[in-house]
Amino acid sequence: MQVMQTLRRAELLYRHDPAVLEGDLVMSWGEFARRTYQLAGALQELGVGDDDKVAVLMLNGHRYLELFYGTFAAGGVVVPLNIRLAPPELIFQINEAEAQVLVVDDTFALMLPAFAGKLPTVRHIIFAGQGKLPDRTLAYEALLAEAPRPKVAERGEDDVAGIFYTGGTTGRPKGVMLTHDNIMANAQNGLIANRGTHRDIYLHSAPMFHLADCSATFGLTMSGAKHAFIPFFEPTKMLEAIQRHRVSLALMIPTMLNMVLNHPNYDSYDLSSLRVISYGASPIPLALLRRALDKLSCDFIQGYGMTELSPLCAMLPPEDHVRDGTPEQLKKLKAAGIPIYTAEVRVVDENDQEVPRGEVGEICARGPMVMKGYWKQPEATAEALRGGWMHTGDAGYMDEDGYIYLVDRTKDMIVTGGENVYSVEVEAALYEHPAVLEAAVIGIPDGEWGEAVHAVVHLKPKHQATADELQHHCHALIANYKCPKSISFSEQELPKSGAGKILKRDLRQPFWEGKERQIN
Amino acid sequence: MQVMQTLRRAELLYRHDPAVLEGDLVMSWGEFARRTYQLAGALQELGVGDDDKVAVLMLNGHRYLELFYGTFAAGGVVVPLNIRLAPPELIFQINEAEAQVLVVDDTFALMLPAFAGKLPTVRHIIFAGQGKLPDRTLAYEALLAEAPRPKVAERGEDDVAGIFYTGGTTGRPKGVMLTHDNIMANAQNGLIANRGTHRDIYLHSAPMFHLADCSATFGLTMSGAKHAFIPFFEPTKMLEAIQRHRVSLALMIPTMLNMVLNHPNYDSYDLSSLRVISYGASPIPLALLRRALDKLSCDFIQGYGMTELSPLCAMLPPEDHVRDGTPEQLKKLKAAGIPIYTAEVRVVDENDQEVPRGEVGEICARGPMVMKGYWKQPEATAEALRGGWMHTGDAGYMDEDGYIYLVDRTKDMIVTGGENVYSVEVEAALYEHPAVLEAAVIGIPDGEWGEAVHAVVHLKPKHQATADELQHHCHALIANYKCPKSISFSEQELPKSGAGKILKRDLRQPFWEGKERQIN
Repeated sequence: MQVMQTLRRAELLYRHDPAVLEGDLVMSWGEFARRTYQLAGALQELGVGDDDKVAVLMLNGHRYLELFYGTFAAGGVVVPLNIRLAPPELIFQINEAEAQVLVVDDTFALMLPAFAGKLPTVRHIIFAGQGKLPDRTLAYEALLAEAPRPKVAERGEDDVAGIFYTGGTTGRPKGVMLTHDNIMANAQNGLIANRGTHRDIYLHSAPMFHLADCSATFGLTMSGAKHAFIPFFEPTKMLEAIQRHRVSLALMIPTMLNMVLNHPNYDSYDLSSLRVISYGASPIPLALLRRALDKLSCDFIQGYGMTELSPLCAMLPPEDHVRDGTPEQLKKLKAAGIPIYTAEVRVVDENDQEVPRGEVGEICARGPMVMKGYWKQPEATAEALRGGWMHTGDAGYMDEDGYIYLVDRTKDMIVTGGENVYSVEVEAALYEHPAVLEAAVIGIPDGEWGEAVHAVVHLKPKHQATADELQHHCHALIANYKCPKSISFSEQELPKSGAGKILKRDLRQPFWEGKERQIN
Repeated sequence: MQVMQTLRRAELLYRHDPAVLEGDLVMSWGEFARRTYQLAGALQELGVGDDDKVAVLMLNGHRYLELFYGTFAAGGVVVPLNIRLAPPELIFQINEAEAQVLVVDDTFALMLPAFAGKLPTVRHIIFAGQGKLPDRTLAYEALLAEAPRPKVAERGEDDVAGIFYTGGTTGRPKGVMLTHDNIMANAQNGLIANRGTHRDIYLHSAPMFHLADCSATFGLTMSGAKHAFIPFFEPTKMLEAIQRHRVSLALMIPTMLNMVLNHPNYDSYDLSSLRVISYGASPIPLALLRRALDKLSCDFIQGYGMTELSPLCAMLPPEDHVRDGTPEQLKKLKAAGIPIYTAEVRVVDENDQEVPRGEVGEICARGPMVMKGYWKQPEATAEALRGGWMHTGDAGYMDEDGYIYLVDRTKDMIVTGGENVYSVEVEAALYEHPAVLEAAVIGIPDGEWGEAVHAVVHLKPKHQATADELQHHCHALIANYKCPKSISFSEQELPKSGAGKILKRDLRQPFWEGKERQIN
């Protein structure tokens, strides 16, 4: 399969219908396709050919969607960058991916000075914003206007379509290589799950670099649905966009849904167009679901997966989102879901043997959605994909009905506001501070974000550092959302296992006493 | 992908829910899966391993479905045989496929004497009927009861799952090799199109050897839907089954739908469970659609495709089935449809160049549903798949909106009651008669079956033969439905082109005067 096929189908069947709804802009599929081919021609003119990497660092908008398809049409590989990362993190990823082209918008053009001289593989920087053209960048619209006709690449199946960076347990981010077939597999599973048609209108409100948003993108194009955009999630913008564009499909993790439902002017918006709300990152609390079901007449679908699974491998279908049910039914609300249509999921022990139902082990998945591998990390790839199964690193169990429940992250990951934070990355930043002897980063309960990043630090003898100072230190090295929201200092050495490993469970315990950790 | 995954998913999630509804029999997914694995064990015990062929010659029933999955689980390749063929045709196909196992039911056990000594590759014949065990056959249920635990084969992706025989322009039938990925591609497209869920109940009323029925089988298993069966299509049985099993998804070509709607007791049946009726073989006449829409509150979906496309490459979606529309809308009712989700369709000239919209050419398709090839016919495979596109042999055009219209069969095929008849096969049978000098077989209008098979024959000098005699002659060689329903004799040599080819258009012309040929 070729991801380009989805656009060709939309262009063939719906060329006069809207593809893009963004503020006052309405663009048809015919016009969108024309611009995509212009972009492909421009990229080819800049030297982008088969397997060449185009990195994108932008807020949401139709140009982001053009960059996906334009890169594929040129033969290239798209590298969508996490907009919340700090410059040193971005520089690492752009270099590791060997990006030849970098595309930024107004927001991220401000970062260009920090990149100067540090991106040896990048030959061209394209500015796809509205403001003044930054020095040494090429104007996106001018490139399109002057583009030669592209030689549309025939890329597909096992060819890599995108490299999506994800955190790693080793502290080194991993570039997940997803093929055309991977992306198409997810597109089809998503369409079956949300029963999407060309009449749907999907709102890109989650960041487009993230597979949670990508997950809907290509299936909906295949079905000829419309793409609406807001630059980033913000409750008022979200409510306005749903009302204005008559959005039928939206993605809102529970935290976001809560903000939207609590919006002071919630009742003044017409949200009757909503048909399905998808969410992920954590199960939906029953109280929130009840409020949502009272206020909205739409279906809810939870998705569970990870970048390496393109991303979906499980879903909690609409019929499990019951307002009032038996204890058995309400328990299922805490599940991550059932295996999605073409996925197989199993739970294994440390010897990769399937464990009995109800027993905790590592969740593994296989199927056409499993990544090709980690970019330039063949050993990590072999380890993750051993036996033909993707090892998620998540600990969980499957009940007798095939529902998957997460109980812990073997990867030592914190989920805060829908973002994954790998403790090891935060700890590495803390260890760079000269006063830190030991540091352990854990997730603690947070009313708004599910979990908050907390650090427990043991300083070197005769050294001093305040929480404020350590936080400031981290902000220079890693993304804001990864930085500890709070830090506690330990006079003693941190508790350790016999093997010398810090016992995080002991550190977490006082924070979680009497609270249930909602993990997903 | 592995077709077995669809059953594993149904078993995992719906093991207590019904999988099979057949007369009084209700069988759960758990029980169905258990029997399937027993069958796989039995087949392996009989020597069936990877790539070994299991031929099935049976009416519809749950054992047919078990034979699909049981063969896959054993590692084998299923060869579903056309139940309407004559013994010489079946013998040819069983031998060509090199089937090691043949499975028959009560109906086709009657044919075993005709097969005796003529199936050198078949080592075991399994009797899956209810009656007395025929000589030299193995009893299906006894095999299951005594089966050892199977070593479930890990077959998938590009491995062949089934060989499905289809007529050919050369007169030699072709075994279409469909892979696991082919079947899964169709399963997913079907599920997206009919928006199937585990709550659906599908009725197997079209013969299960035919891909028109298979098309729904695996996607519905994946979604956990229920399979209801009637042994063969018959209007009263169909109506009773829909009412009894609360069928939501049914397949009825227009001819069958017409019979059902005209049933004398139609109004006494409760058909309110029907959600989607799929059809193919020809567009639905407007008058029939109007009557159907008046009597039934369900959606209609037309499918277009062929065995080589697993089988769907296009569909006419529900919203095009309008009762009263503009002339433009009503014209679309005569289309074969729009490309299905993961298919690309184009119309080409004899140099394989795409023709402008509205111009007639050969319809070609590509995508994950395109067959692996014709079994043991590499040249025919290369010819059909040249340039990476399946050349359907159908002549048609695509309108500006991407709708595909068929105008003729370049393969010289007649569609009668939903079955494809290749003229060349019928002509070959006629030519075997000693009195026939020239024979041309054409489709002529038929009120009930759309088209009827008609032969125009020019006898040898000083030879005589009656129509009755020639029909009798054909019945011994080819399937009943292929035999000429009527024969006309020409005193003169048949009209020919400069190149010496019989001009069938001239022969057809008097029959079709003033009538529109409904081709699809």
